[in-house]
Amino acid sequence: MKSGGKSHISGSFHTEQEWKIIMSGYEELRNRPIGVFDSGVGGLTVAREIMRQLPNERIVYFGDTARVPYGSKSQDTITKFSRQIVRFLQTQGVKAIVVACNSASAYALDELEQEVDIPIIGVVKPGTKAAIMATKNGKIGVIATEATTGSGIYSRYIKENDSGATILCKACPLFVPLVEEGLWEDPVTDEIARRYLTELIDVGIDTLILGCTHYPIIRSTIGRIMGDGVTLVNPAYETARELKELLREQGLESEHRPELGTELYRFFVSDGADKFQKFANSILTYGILSAKVINIDEY
Amino acid sequence: MKSGGKSHISGSFHTEQEWKIIMSGYEELRNRPIGVFDSGVGGLTVAREIMRQLPNERIVYFGDTARVPYGSKSQDTITKFSRQIVRFLQTQGVKAIVVACNSASAYALDELEQEVDIPIIGVVKPGTKAAIMATKNGKIGVIATEATTGSGIYSRYIKENDSGATILCKACPLFVPLVEEGLWEDPVTDEIARRYLTELIDVGIDTLILGCTHYPIIRSTIGRIMGDGVTLVNPAYETARELKELLREQGLESEHRPELGTELYRFFVSDGADKFQKFANSILTYGILSAKVINIDEY
Repeated sequence: MKSGGKSHISGSFHTEQEWKIIMSGYEELRNRPIGVFDSGVGGLTVAREIMRQLPNERIVYFGDTARVPYGSKSQDTITKFSRQIVRFLQTQGVKAIVVACNSASAYALDELEQEVDIPIIGVVKPGTKAAIMATKNGKIGVIATEATTGSGIYSRYIKENDSGATILCKACPLFVPLVEEGLWEDPVTDEIARRYLTELIDVGIDTLILGCTHYPIIRSTIGRIMGDGVTLVNPAYETARELKELLREQGLESEHRPELGTELYRFFVSDGADKFQKFANSILTYGILSAKVINIDEY
Repeated sequence: MKSGGKSHISGSFHTEQEWKIIMSGYEELRNRPIGVFDSGVGGLTVAREIMRQLPNERIVYFGDTARVPYGSKSQDTITKFSRQIVRFLQTQGVKAIVVACNSASAYALDELEQEVDIPIIGVVKPGTKAAIMATKNGKIGVIATEATTGSGIYSRYIKENDSGATILCKACPLFVPLVEEGLWEDPVTDEIARRYLTELIDVGIDTLILGCTHYPIIRSTIGRIMGDGVTLVNPAYETARELKELLREQGLESEHRPELGTELYRFFVSDGADKFQKFANSILTYGILSAKVINIDEY
């Protein structure tokens, strides 16, 4: 991650006129939106947390609905798709990027960090930090897509920061389709969750990372099955917190709520704007006026 | 659909040498493979039927695993993806193409037919023909993905050929993930199937089209719930039959089983060859030696 531009205002050999230009440039930079992207609708749980915790910030969201899901795809494919999306978000003048997709954070973030000169953060690191803080018995569970569990990234990050931790990762491929089918509170979701989670209960984990952005939507089901003794970590929440800190450190936070009439949140997808909008309206407090379809292959 | 080349040998003003060249060209054409494509693994149920019913034919299969599923995507996206795949299959020298994907057959086939000069068939028409033959009470059900039901194509085709028919289409979005998770015989699949199918039972259909290539894999569950009075139509079976007829009509069938050592079936995917191979080996009688990953965006 590189500085977002604070260094530009540290000089002192400028005329008053030059200062005005510099300050207005800096003001413009701070008022730029945050880019948030995901393979589809899941990242909206991250966008929702950013809206809650950083109400002054504008957001440009991109959901790759033409190529969703990423969770069953390979590193090469996920990296290629993510790179295209980052290029698109840069055309929208974003000041920072949040990779609101665990699979892309797992596989593509390291490369993306090398390639862009604005701050870029994923959802994996914030989630692991919070889990390490929360665990008492050192046994941490992670539930995620096949891509994320297959990448081994959660285990690696946790081990790097807490070498004594025991980590159990479990892929839960049916959770995403169940959430997208709207079965948020349903005996079928209960049954599937029980099958996936039994192993984690048997091992005696006391902390569980919801390692896929769809999972917070069924957190009450997951919490009921895991029981009161297990802390659920929602990386969406932790990521918004880390973003807030990062923007403050780099002097990039927007200081004022955008003026009335300014479009706070803009949504882009690679396919199916209506379907996206419907889902988005079911999980965001703010209604989405519209989502625009773009051709992501061109970026 | 245009003729595959039989007209070339109907002339009679050729020398013996010219005839030899013509006949060997024709022989080469007949020995070319059939191109079969799907958004992922589902089309393997169609490939399986072609292998059974046309044992002399070679197959080049493409599964678009990087962009699967198509069932939740829009017409524009599905058409664009299908066009790229057809271009790829043409580089493999196929003599005919089977669109082994209901969503692509529903949305892209009409345009593809205009664009290619080899025979191309989908799975929708053969399925509807068989259903019209099978129904006694004129009440036909169709289960499929959201894209296929949304396209209205099954209703349109059935109405065109049997204007008195009553058609009830039902999208079953969870069937594909359940099949891919391996829950082919499972109480959860039973429960979900019961929810989706109740409506069709209540209406009193006597014929049900399995309008998604994944569904034949759970046909025993579907059949049990629908009961003995309902005929299940498997478009994969009907499509292989229609392909056989078409090749015969156009003089394009391969007359001999390819020689030993000839690679009968070749598989290409846009992502995750290992995963594809594993699934393919679970549903095909022939083991797949390997699947090759290609970059489908480039076509």
